[in-house]
Amino acid sequence: MDPAVILVTVRNPLNIGAAARAMANFGLDDLRVVRPYELAFREAVSAVGGAHVLKSARIFDSVAEAVADCSLVVGTTAAQRRELQQPIESVETGMHRVRGHEGRIALMFGSEKFGLSNEDMSFCHALLRIETAAGTPSMNLGQAVAVCLYEWSRGRGEAAHRARKNEAMAGADAEQMTKMLLEVLERSGYTNRITAVSTEQKIRRWVRRMRIGRRDAPLLMGILRQILWKIGEKK
Amino acid sequence: MDPAVILVTVRNPLNIGAAARAMANFGLDDLRVVRPYELAFREAVSAVGGAHVLKSARIFDSVAEAVADCSLVVGTTAAQRRELQQPIESVETGMHRVRGHEGRIALMFGSEKFGLSNEDMSFCHALLRIETAAGTPSMNLGQAVAVCLYEWSRGRGEAAHRARKNEAMAGADAEQMTKMLLEVLERSGYTNRITAVSTEQKIRRWVRRMRIGRRDAPLLMGILRQILWKIGEKK
Repeated sequence: MDPAVILVTVRNPLNIGAAARAMANFGLDDLRVVRPYELAFREAVSAVGGAHVLKSARIFDSVAEAVADCSLVVGTTAAQRRELQQPIESVETGMHRVRGHEGRIALMFGSEKFGLSNEDMSFCHALLRIETAAGTPSMNLGQAVAVCLYEWSRGRGEAAHRARKNEAMAGADAEQMTKMLLEVLERSGYTNRITAVSTEQKIRRWVRRMRIGRRDAPLLMGILRQILWKIGEKK
Repeated sequence: MDPAVILVTVRNPLNIGAAARAMANFGLDDLRVVRPYELAFREAVSAVGGAHVLKSARIFDSVAEAVADCSLVVGTTAAQRRELQQPIESVETGMHRVRGHEGRIALMFGSEKFGLSNEDMSFCHALLRIETAAGTPSMNLGQAVAVCLYEWSRGRGEAAHRARKNEAMAGADAEQMTKMLLEVLERSGYTNRITAVSTEQKIRRWVRRMRIGRRDAPLLMGILRQILWKIGEKK
């Protein structure tokens, strides 16, 4: 399935236009924008050749909503400032995975200045990085989108996609499972108020990293429900 | 040898800045500009991260002069408007050739509107084309430069980048996890005596199918231990 492109808190409307154009170049049309700085980006920008992508772009208030229908979320990072909690793949490896995935896919890009936050990345099943020079690692957003989509497009002609038997669960299911697990942790006293935020991100990442299949999800949710029932109300 | 990038009659200084930034991202520094529309492009443009490339860019009056020291000249084209006189290669094939070449190499890009002229292309040993969608074939110049340099760079040190692996946990850990999970299920009343055996197999398969990594295993076991503690002894 053709991936959606998600831009999170992007500041410069020109970059949204550039992303739209690269999408049009590589035959994609599902652009999603999370909390853009400039709400009038559609009018402000003339994306030569990407106008139809820009016109149909959807705006979301949160990453959770933007990825709700996606069963594979791939984030991008220059991997500079942070200790990353997730393994990083090359664009090549990451896009190979994307091409093989059955179900809806999101490619997520962060703001020009800060990239994706740890919170944003906790929604990702995988992170990828364009190999750049050590002295100037951070790419322009529109160029990074173009490179990623080129790499995605490059491998398409190759082997026929292998159907995965156990299709991944959608983002909304993953998030429901995350919430249930957090509830279990809180009620059982695992979660400490001081570390609650980092625990939430840790659990969210962990649920994605498990690559829980659509047909496994009900089993795990059933288990969690049972545990919640057994533990009883929060004290 | 690292290739030079030659921009021919480029109109928008921002695109020269974008090309410079992409060059810096992929570790290149030999930028050559042939008859730019804006001679003051160095001052007009702030190429985040590409400033040193832009500062040292050289201006030429003709393609002939710009490529005089190059033994391989590779042009780029969207291959739309013209009957081309030369065979066109994919970026992948073209860059493979570039990487294998001994001697100085030029990658040449034309103006935003018209690309390289037939005259410009006559200086090229090869032409390459980024495979784009039929409806929107023409890429933004800065994005096209980024894609070409990415493809050049991609093939260089294949082994250089290895994704951090989350090695699978050992069988003993998987089994310990299975037992803990079964204990949780039994104590919470999920397991029914009649279906206990099939549940055990289901959970065992499920734990393996998750492909839980070595470094994720302690987190999950910690959670299970906490739940067991909370639920208390079997009744």
